[in-house]
Amino acid sequence: MTDFFKGIAPVRFEGADSTTDLAFRHYNPDEVVMGKRMQDHLRFAVAYWHSFAWPGTDPFGGPTFERPWFGETMDLARLKADVAFELFDILQAPFFCFHDADIRPEGADFAENTRNLEAIVDYIGEKMQQSRTRLLWGTANLFSHRRYMAGAATNPDPDVFAFAAATVKTCMDATLKLGGENYVLWGGREGYETLLNTDLSREADQMARFLSMVIDYKHKIGFKGAILIEPKPQEPSKHQYDYDVATVYGFLRRYGLENEVKVNIEQGHAILAGHSFEHEIATAASLGIFGSIDMNRNDYQSGWDTDQFPNNVPEVALAYYEILKAGGFTTGGTNFDAKIRRQSIEPEDLILSHVGAMDICARGLKAAAAMLEDGTLERQRADRYAGWSAPAAQEMLQGGTLDAIAQRVLSEGINPKPRSGRQEALENLVNRFV
Amino acid sequence: MTDFFKGIAPVRFEGADSTTDLAFRHYNPDEVVMGKRMQDHLRFAVAYWHSFAWPGTDPFGGPTFERPWFGETMDLARLKADVAFELFDILQAPFFCFHDADIRPEGADFAENTRNLEAIVDYIGEKMQQSRTRLLWGTANLFSHRRYMAGAATNPDPDVFAFAAATVKTCMDATLKLGGENYVLWGGREGYETLLNTDLSREADQMARFLSMVIDYKHKIGFKGAILIEPKPQEPSKHQYDYDVATVYGFLRRYGLENEVKVNIEQGHAILAGHSFEHEIATAASLGIFGSIDMNRNDYQSGWDTDQFPNNVPEVALAYYEILKAGGFTTGGTNFDAKIRRQSIEPEDLILSHVGAMDICARGLKAAAAMLEDGTLERQRADRYAGWSAPAAQEMLQGGTLDAIAQRVLSEGINPKPRSGRQEALENLVNRFV
Amino acid sequence: MTDFFKGIAPVRFEGADSTTDLAFRHYNPDEVVMGKRMQDHLRFAVAYWHSFAWPGTDPFGGPTFERPWFGETMDLARLKADVAFELFDILQAPFFCFHDADIRPEGADFAENTRNLEAIVDYIGEKMQQSRTRLLWGTANLFSHRRYMAGAATNPDPDVFAFAAATVKTCMDATLKLGGENYVLWGGREGYETLLNTDLSREADQMARFLSMVIDYKHKIGFKGAILIEPKPQEPSKHQYDYDVATVYGFLRRYGLENEVKVNIEQGHAILAGHSFEHEIATAASLGIFGSIDMNRNDYQSGWDTDQFPNNVPEVALAYYEILKAGGFTTGGTNFDAKIRRQSIEPEDLILSHVGAMDICARGLKAAAAMLEDGTLERQRADRYAGWSAPAAQEMLQGGTLDAIAQRVLSEGINPKPRSGRQEALENLVNRFV
Amino acid sequence: MTDFFKGIAPVRFEGADSTTDLAFRHYNPDEVVMGKRMQDHLRFAVAYWHSFAWPGTDPFGGPTFERPWFGETMDLARLKADVAFELFDILQAPFFCFHDADIRPEGADFAENTRNLEAIVDYIGEKMQQSRTRLLWGTANLFSHRRYMAGAATNPDPDVFAFAAATVKTCMDATLKLGGENYVLWGGREGYETLLNTDLSREADQMARFLSMVIDYKHKIGFKGAILIEPKPQEPSKHQYDYDVATVYGFLRRYGLENEVKVNIEQGHAILAGHSFEHEIATAASLGIFGSIDMNRNDYQSGWDTDQFPNNVPEVALAYYEILKAGGFTTGGTNFDAKIRRQSIEPEDLILSHVGAMDICARGLKAAAAMLEDGTLERQRADRYAGWSAPAAQEMLQGGTLDAIAQRVLSEGINPKPRSGRQEALENLVNRFV
Ligand SMILES: [Co+2]
Ligand SMILES: [Co+2]
Ligand SMILES: [Co+2]
Ligand SMILES: [Co+2]
Ligand SMILES: [Co+2]
Ligand SMILES: [Co+2]
Ligand SMILES: [Co+2]
Ligand SMILES: [Co+2]
Repeated sequence: MTDFFKGIAPVRFEGADSTTDLAFRHYNPDEVVMGKRMQDHLRFAVAYWHSFAWPGTDPFGGPTFERPWFGETMDLARLKADVAFELFDILQAPFFCFHDADIRPEGADFAENTRNLEAIVDYIGEKMQQSRTRLLWGTANLFSHRRYMAGAATNPDPDVFAFAAATVKTCMDATLKLGGENYVLWGGREGYETLLNTDLSREADQMARFLSMVIDYKHKIGFKGAILIEPKPQEPSKHQYDYDVATVYGFLRRYGLENEVKVNIEQGHAILAGHSFEHEIATAASLGIFGSIDMNRNDYQSGWDTDQFPNNVPEVALAYYEILKAGGFTTGGTNFDAKIRRQSIEPEDLILSHVGAMDICARGLKAAAAMLEDGTLERQRADRYAGWSAPAAQEMLQGGTLDAIAQRVLSEGINPKPRSGRQEALENLVNRFV
Repeated sequence: MTDFFKGIAPVRFEGADSTTDLAFRHYNPDEVVMGKRMQDHLRFAVAYWHSFAWPGTDPFGGPTFERPWFGETMDLARLKADVAFELFDILQAPFFCFHDADIRPEGADFAENTRNLEAIVDYIGEKMQQSRTRLLWGTANLFSHRRYMAGAATNPDPDVFAFAAATVKTCMDATLKLGGENYVLWGGREGYETLLNTDLSREADQMARFLSMVIDYKHKIGFKGAILIEPKPQEPSKHQYDYDVATVYGFLRRYGLENEVKVNIEQGHAILAGHSFEHEIATAASLGIFGSIDMNRNDYQSGWDTDQFPNNVPEVALAYYEILKAGGFTTGGTNFDAKIRRQSIEPEDLILSHVGAMDICARGLKAAAAMLEDGTLERQRADRYAGWSAPAAQEMLQGGTLDAIAQRVLSEGINPKPRSGRQEALENLVNRFV
Repeated sequence: MTDFFKGIAPVRFEGADSTTDLAFRHYNPDEVVMGKRMQDHLRFAVAYWHSFAWPGTDPFGGPTFERPWFGETMDLARLKADVAFELFDILQAPFFCFHDADIRPEGADFAENTRNLEAIVDYIGEKMQQSRTRLLWGTANLFSHRRYMAGAATNPDPDVFAFAAATVKTCMDATLKLGGENYVLWGGREGYETLLNTDLSREADQMARFLSMVIDYKHKIGFKGAILIEPKPQEPSKHQYDYDVATVYGFLRRYGLENEVKVNIEQGHAILAGHSFEHEIATAASLGIFGSIDMNRNDYQSGWDTDQFPNNVPEVALAYYEILKAGGFTTGGTNFDAKIRRQSIEPEDLILSHVGAMDICARGLKAAAAMLEDGTLERQRADRYAGWSAPAAQEMLQGGTLDAIAQRVLSEGINPKPRSGRQEALENLVNRFV
Repeated sequence: MTDFFKGIAPVRFEGADSTTDLAFRHYNPDEVVMGKRMQDHLRFAVAYWHSFAWPGTDPFGGPTFERPWFGETMDLARLKADVAFELFDILQAPFFCFHDADIRPEGADFAENTRNLEAIVDYIGEKMQQSRTRLLWGTANLFSHRRYMAGAATNPDPDVFAFAAATVKTCMDATLKLGGENYVLWGGREGYETLLNTDLSREADQMARFLSMVIDYKHKIGFKGAILIEPKPQEPSKHQYDYDVATVYGFLRRYGLENEVKVNIEQGHAILAGHSFEHEIATAASLGIFGSIDMNRNDYQSGWDTDQFPNNVPEVALAYYEILKAGGFTTGGTNFDAKIRRQSIEPEDLILSHVGAMDICARGLKAAAAMLEDGTLERQRADRYAGWSAPAAQEMLQGGTLDAIAQRVLSEGINPKPRSGRQEALENLVNRFV
């Protein structure tokens, strides 16, 4: 037991009228919503990196957090893991997520990285014996080290590709060993800073080759979880190839990988790409590639990835509504890929931020479930398209031709009258639930 | 001969030192660039709608242009065509483009629309006998009339789908008749205002069905031109399905249409989607779906589609560089889907805007050709990836596995050293040519 | 009694559990919040233009609404007024707002405009005798007609300045006559499309001169209401001089008008300028120029002024929180400068949109009041600055010098330690109330 | 002589046809433009921080540059200065700029910081004896250290205010000692992350007090240079008080400081605030507060401060056009507050980036001068407002009233006709020069 969170008891559900800061007011893990425990719906995960590895820097400022575990030694890595699991316990977090670089000290080469990773994975494995917290997903950090500055899979230097491939192998091994339910790839450097030095065709082929090897290796080692790509349009690169859900889908189709890979969708990345979060989720669901979410918002007035904890129930409700409509999570969950603000320097801030976010999500989930159970919204949506069940309409969908249809428009004098889209009425309806 | 442009002679190439406003300083149609006449490289087209149909309105203002041909009669439509061809002649424009709604009066129903269209197509056909201006592409306006307010192909009402299909048939007939080299689809209403009333799966299927019928009809009537989709992320709809090139590609792959359809890329739409113009062109080229361009910029400080004539040579040069690298236009060309500003109310403004834009494009083309002929940029790009021709690298690309690669990284102690991306050096290089 | 809204009864407060669409669930005019009736806090106004004059056009589409009062005759203007007051009654709207161009037919010249305006003002004055709805503000439309395409007060043509000045005189007369509580100026064309043809210094002087005449005339006619400027950064112009609250303040100070003019702040315009709504309100309050609000949001994924009804309680609550902190409205109120979506073509949509928005605002107000009464947020804010009451701190504020302070830092070894900003804790706190 | 740039000779002007990378093609310091040497027009400055202190980090990546001078010792600080002056010599840079934190090692407290600063200032002073490079401006870094995370002048803790004030005193002393021509304040932390914990009124007063002390101290020590504020809307803070030029002006007026302070305008910050660079320059000039520029662009597709070297002549030309119109620089100059890209890891990249940027600026300056000497643009601008010299127009400007003007509009039947804004014609005109 470290003393980092000393004096802080596990957070309990106390209901909406609780007067303590460190209580769940809405997240009640065992409460049943639409036939399933809230915990099993939401599947919250704490992200190791933002909470334990990020020092509070920003592009104009140095570290603001002073954590006793900062530094690159195995002892400090173990201390970090000790504190991490204490946070997981305090929050009753069902899951966590990590990059290799979050949990192990940086080594001088691949061999040392691997030794460090294996040792700390053993350590974490032992800790998991004592903990209820499971691994939602593992991933490799292929973007922070300078070797990756021009890409990992898409690097012009094949040695970087090799180094990255080798690293992913070790991270998939680690994820398997720790019982992870998914393996994630985020391509922050898979893109370009300037098109002037970039060969898009080569880089796409490299990226597809890399991904194929990941899929092959998954099957080889018997990893049953999902392979997830996390789309993001830009930042750190000027352009990233996994721009958004639709772009990732096109890439998967191009290389025939659409049945092997799903997406991990982040609210902030949706916004950077010009979409709402619910758009990206609904798009993934309609394309059959919905996997998991990073439930962290970007500030609407900032043009970069602010990775803040969610705080707006109506927005969160629309996201869970699409998730519930899509059948809910299977291997996926609700990861908080979120940083406390760099001024939030107290240990307590780490807890408060997660508690608030979990409550927001619980409120959103309950509102979404209520809307779905109410059924009005889905009924109205279906009604809007009801005309398509008519035989003539179905015929067009199955095998119409432009000229046959033109003939029918002429002969029947078809002259459609617009019908109200009822957007405000539907927004009012949603507002009864949030 | 109308008197709209009275006193204005055809614009001639006079060279960079010309002192008249109405002269080409850089666009010299017969000048040979990389073995081809400039005219045949650039393949300029005047857009009928912005130049002849748009009255100068904006969301806060009424018409500012007072054109003698405004109104919905056949006589006025013929007058409009007369003036249009006078502009084409003054500019020596090799091509023009149109929507049905630009050239014919709006009818009360499909039958009247069709009669109007056929009559005016005959009239335009006659005019083309006297003119050197050809048709780059035709298209159907499936977005202005209130019947399309909730979509054309993706409308919840199958009658709207039918009306749109019938309309496209007539527009494809007209395009074929007038010798058009392409047929374009822009889905300004194929998307949604609110996800709350929208079924993404149904609408995607409807859109694909519609597009398949267009392809079938093209083959049936023996239209040899290309079918082009013009991507745009938003506006007028909150979200449009043809968001950007990569999204359109994914859609085509999903429905197996990627060999039948190409894209018409607009600079302004690239910007709205968060991309540079050259990015979208290079992406389309690398995916094998590059078709044509709309060379009109958006203001970088405005968040909507300002559709302005191009005015920045360095930007335009990078676009033509990607086009030349991709082999240049085949059926496509350089369309100005551009509005003069609503304060530019004089007939002369219509000419000045096109003349300036054509000169900007000519300068961009020549700079792009010079860069390509110089070869340094491509040499440096190729050099950057040279490592990939090594046997071990090729092996990874052909059939590597993560574990074999990891083994090799370990055994060979692979520890890659980053190399400079030389972005500023490359930007300097480009600036020698623009 | 027209039959436009036939069969629709006045909307009543029915409480959160109401099952009808056309009921207030949260807006209860007589309910007392912080010692004042909700109606008197919120002071809702219906905007004549979007609800009665806008035909549903957008930059790519024609009219979608078919209103029996569309057209430019006095009879139609009276019919429009009849329907408008029926809407006001149905909503129990305490206020409305108008531009001259909304209520009167467009005339051929200033004389006819004035006659039309005076006649319809008389008609509306009579209607107000029968109605509880009052006038929140009047304004002149100095942006739709083509004469204003290059500005009204800032036009390069002094005749346009004169025409605009004369028009504002008649609109101020009308506002006074109808008992308006404010007079608003929105400068949609006071700015530029291109800096190349613009003289910023001249135009600023023209604008200041115009505003001074407005102030003088207000005093001359004994108008007791406030003069309000509505900031907006762009659209329709590329740049508008009244960019945001801080810019307007600088302009007022430059010309010594800061005690005579306040601001009318619109949520959508705040967003376009890169600010949150609450930022603009708080800024105005801190500068002493807060006047009134336009409570209509922009879509965060659209780059233009979408003018939608509000639908997000947490956002609205933060706005009212700043308003309550600033003492609440005096002459100002909550205007809905909001358009129903162009697909919302039914009369009922006009009502539903307002009802939903009024409920959202009521929820936001009650949450804001509860936060303020709770007091925790303000207590924590004050605590954060508590150090400034120390004598040494006060001394720096009153009359310190850099060298004296440097001396003290040295001698006292001042080496400040950062304290947590507690952002997440504060966001959690707010979420207890919304 | 260090060996960092070994083998690299001073860069010389070789003309547009030069075949070496390390040559000026357009920047010819002694060439006379509009009666002044180019060097004296442009007054280039190299920024110490990006070129010598920034390690190549970004929000997702660690250092990429490996500089022999990285580390916090006086020896390394001297080595850094040695290399910096070698770069200045290679570039023939007339000026440089620095923050205290760039040139001295970080100390444990104010006393040590001051000792370090004084020692290195002496060292730099000696180097300047041997160098032709002068100091354009000095400034204090009040944003990187964690003590400033919640602001410097606007910090809720008065001890931070004191520490910042003491630090600025030492930086002003250093700037005076090194003959600096300006002193700059950039308030990256003067703003807020969340309005929830912020008191705008207090913070504005604190900021004004701080600035007043700076002005007082300037006069006390006899510093003849200008005090400059550098506006920026956001980043690192969510909102910064010095949002843009107009906002800074309003602040200065509010506290009566508008005659003592000017602005240093950065292209990238203009863009982040929604303005063009030339807009901000022209605005400052029209308000009488134009001081100096940071000539570094932001990528239009990135939403953050990318601080890239300029590379677009047409844009740069419009900026210098406004500067020349305003009379050119007095104490100000052209600072490159620009980072080489983090992949540009070679020493040569540091030189190439500056050489390219200086050439771009030289081309822009020459184009701007040619436009001004040509005079057409200014003539057309003046013509547009010519109507204002008529007596009736002047009368309105001097002392009109709304009612008198209305009377005149009626009696004279004033009914203005719009005139073309000629935007495209003007853009064509500009393109003859760039
Ligand atoms: Co993120
Ligand atoms: Co994420
Ligand atoms: Co466009
Ligand atoms: Co287009
Ligand atoms: Co608005
Ligand atoms: Co408004
Ligand atoms: Co910057
Ligand atoms: Co700067």
